[in-house]
Amino acid sequence: MMPFERSEYVGRMKKVQKSMNEKGIDVLLITDPANMCYLSGHNAWSFYVHQMLLVSLDDEMPIFIGRYMDAFSGVVKTTWLDEKHVRAYPDVLVHNPPSHPMDYVSEVVKELGLDKKTIGLEMDNYYFTAAAHEALKKGLPNAKLVDGDLIVNWVRIIKSEAEIELQFKAGKIADLAMQAAVDTLKPGARQCDVAAAIQYAQVMGTKEFGGDYGSIVPLLPSGDTAGAPHLTWTDEKYPDNTVVAVELAGIHQRYHAPKARTVAIGKPKQKVLDVAKITVEGLNAALDAAKPGNTCEDIEAAWRNVISKHGIEKESRIGYSTGLNYPPDWGEHTISLRPGDKTVLQPNMTFHCIPGMYFDDFGVSISESFVITEKGAVPFGKFERKLIIND
Amino acid sequence: MMPFERSEYVGRMKKVQKSMNEKGIDVLLITDPANMCYLSGHNAWSFYVHQMLLVSLDDEMPIFIGRYMDAFSGVVKTTWLDEKHVRAYPDVLVHNPPSHPMDYVSEVVKELGLDKKTIGLEMDNYYFTAAAHEALKKGLPNAKLVDGDLIVNWVRIIKSEAEIELQFKAGKIADLAMQAAVDTLKPGARQCDVAAAIQYAQVMGTKEFGGDYGSIVPLLPSGDTAGAPHLTWTDEKYPDNTVVAVELAGIHQRYHAPKARTVAIGKPKQKVLDVAKITVEGLNAALDAAKPGNTCEDIEAAWRNVISKHGIEKESRIGYSTGLNYPPDWGEHTISLRPGDKTVLQPNMTFHCIPGMYFDDFGVSISESFVITEKGAVPFGKFERKLIIND
Repeated sequence: MMPFERSEYVGRMKKVQKSMNEKGIDVLLITDPANMCYLSGHNAWSFYVHQMLLVSLDDEMPIFIGRYMDAFSGVVKTTWLDEKHVRAYPDVLVHNPPSHPMDYVSEVVKELGLDKKTIGLEMDNYYFTAAAHEALKKGLPNAKLVDGDLIVNWVRIIKSEAEIELQFKAGKIADLAMQAAVDTLKPGARQCDVAAAIQYAQVMGTKEFGGDYGSIVPLLPSGDTAGAPHLTWTDEKYPDNTVVAVELAGIHQRYHAPKARTVAIGKPKQKVLDVAKITVEGLNAALDAAKPGNTCEDIEAAWRNVISKHGIEKESRIGYSTGLNYPPDWGEHTISLRPGDKTVLQPNMTFHCIPGMYFDDFGVSISESFVITEKGAVPFGKFERKLIIND
Repeated sequence: MMPFERSEYVGRMKKVQKSMNEKGIDVLLITDPANMCYLSGHNAWSFYVHQMLLVSLDDEMPIFIGRYMDAFSGVVKTTWLDEKHVRAYPDVLVHNPPSHPMDYVSEVVKELGLDKKTIGLEMDNYYFTAAAHEALKKGLPNAKLVDGDLIVNWVRIIKSEAEIELQFKAGKIADLAMQAAVDTLKPGARQCDVAAAIQYAQVMGTKEFGGDYGSIVPLLPSGDTAGAPHLTWTDEKYPDNTVVAVELAGIHQRYHAPKARTVAIGKPKQKVLDVAKITVEGLNAALDAAKPGNTCEDIEAAWRNVISKHGIEKESRIGYSTGLNYPPDWGEHTISLRPGDKTVLQPNMTFHCIPGMYFDDFGVSISESFVITEKGAVPFGKFERKLIIND
């Protein structure tokens, strides 16, 4: 069931171990489900309970530590890990304070003789809570616990050819899902009808390959609250005239190709047409700047040059690195397309550039996800880059 | 856009403040998106960045602290909070270590003169990371930071009539989504086709009211990995003969009614029929025991009595409190239906009882979500409680 060869996982482990070594980290305890999947192949909705992947410098294979029902039937049968690299904690530790699954993790670390080592923790990951940290501090008093956040995420920024292929498949699905949105965004349709059509298209995928769930659900801000980009949907009906900013992703085997387009129901006001035109112009300039040797802030600067000519300012970042992910985010928390990010662009980096323009009474969002190649940015999808008018 | 009257939010705040007072907590910093929504009405996919709700003992209204693009267009326009109770941090704090949004939260706490108080933190919530904790410790050296985990969750266990009504609507949607699964689980159908049909039904809802996204995606373990209940789906086709354990929820305005049924494609083996029969018998016994005055462990004991008669043991808990939630879990992390949980059942508690039977080569999962009434358990849906055979 793994989408990659064993050799790819071994190669990923080596890169992570190299980075750990450079930072003086002997053991990395990984809680980010995307990082766990990246190194082990484990792909399940098991992250709602505490679980962990232990990477040490002297073992090419990581150790999965999780709940019994996830560990043996799931991990052993669906990943490259053998039984010796899977540990299960008893179910009584699930959601049952003051006991904590991390007490079991500490026992495993001790049993492996690693409890006096320097241990890196993913300090700012959703799935590594303050309580998990406290439990490990108590359980491993002789270890040196240090911040190991984003070590794997930074390895993930350069994708393999196999990963890029999955993202192109995701891009095809994103186009289909966006078409489903455009086809249903009509006066009288309920917001939930449109969201249902999008999710159906996302999960069906194509005849050749299926789709997966998004790390973010479809976002459909419109009308009065169009300036709030993270609202989801209600069951209210669309009026005869409104502007809907649709943000969604195509997803294939957990790899994402996000995409935003804005759909005007009815004839849009001139200011909407103007902002959409500027957005596309700015996005095109950003994509032109997205080539090896330039930096991430150069992409944002190219965008900013265009909008400032038109007297528009935008405070927020215009994009981020994307790829493999799990809820609640499809961004990788490494690179942001914003001033000050001097990361040099390299081939096989993949981004979602989403310069959302949010105003009090409408929002326009037109985006592209793409891979950096020697020849510049190549988008994952082909959906026309413009304001769509359902008149 | 709020599903409840302002008075309901005020009443919830009072209950939380009472609990804080009993625990000696002056200020509660809330990061659980369900708890934030419960007290403020804020409902958006904004939790992928750090955000917080501040509850103090002497203000009936909580304060939302979040990213600019979520705060003013979103919270002010869609919740009962006024502008004075909304604070926004600059976008440059998003995913940009070593700076952290909690530095801004500390400033707000100081500005309110609360930085020498006893401050409760949701220590084991997904959205309160170890790094967030460290940042607050640094930013609020004079505060007494204590564990305030689950304070709001425990208030949430008794639902209002308005909440129960949303869960019954969710139950209706769960039945429709399960029917969509049963209608599509046929030989040759791809797993993703079934997942797509389920998600479509979940989000469309009924003609009268729409559906929402689940805090967990549809889970469809089958065949060789049916024992791993948290696997999602692939694009493989179902064979002529297999057993699929379907777990999903109906969702309406973030309120959940989860449901599991097991579908045999082709004629099932005798052992599958036997386990399904025992599961239904045990589930019925559990539902009979789910009445005011009994405890949560009594529900589990009623189940255990039935299966042990048949020589079966099950280690894991058989259910939990459910209701309002956000990914990654629709359980409330308070009550578990397991030995040792002596919580006394009261009217308007709502549960998902899911005694999953996971074996090496097949899994059977038949569940019910229900509300406790004076007369006993009333299920949220009407789907027939049995093994479904698509022969």
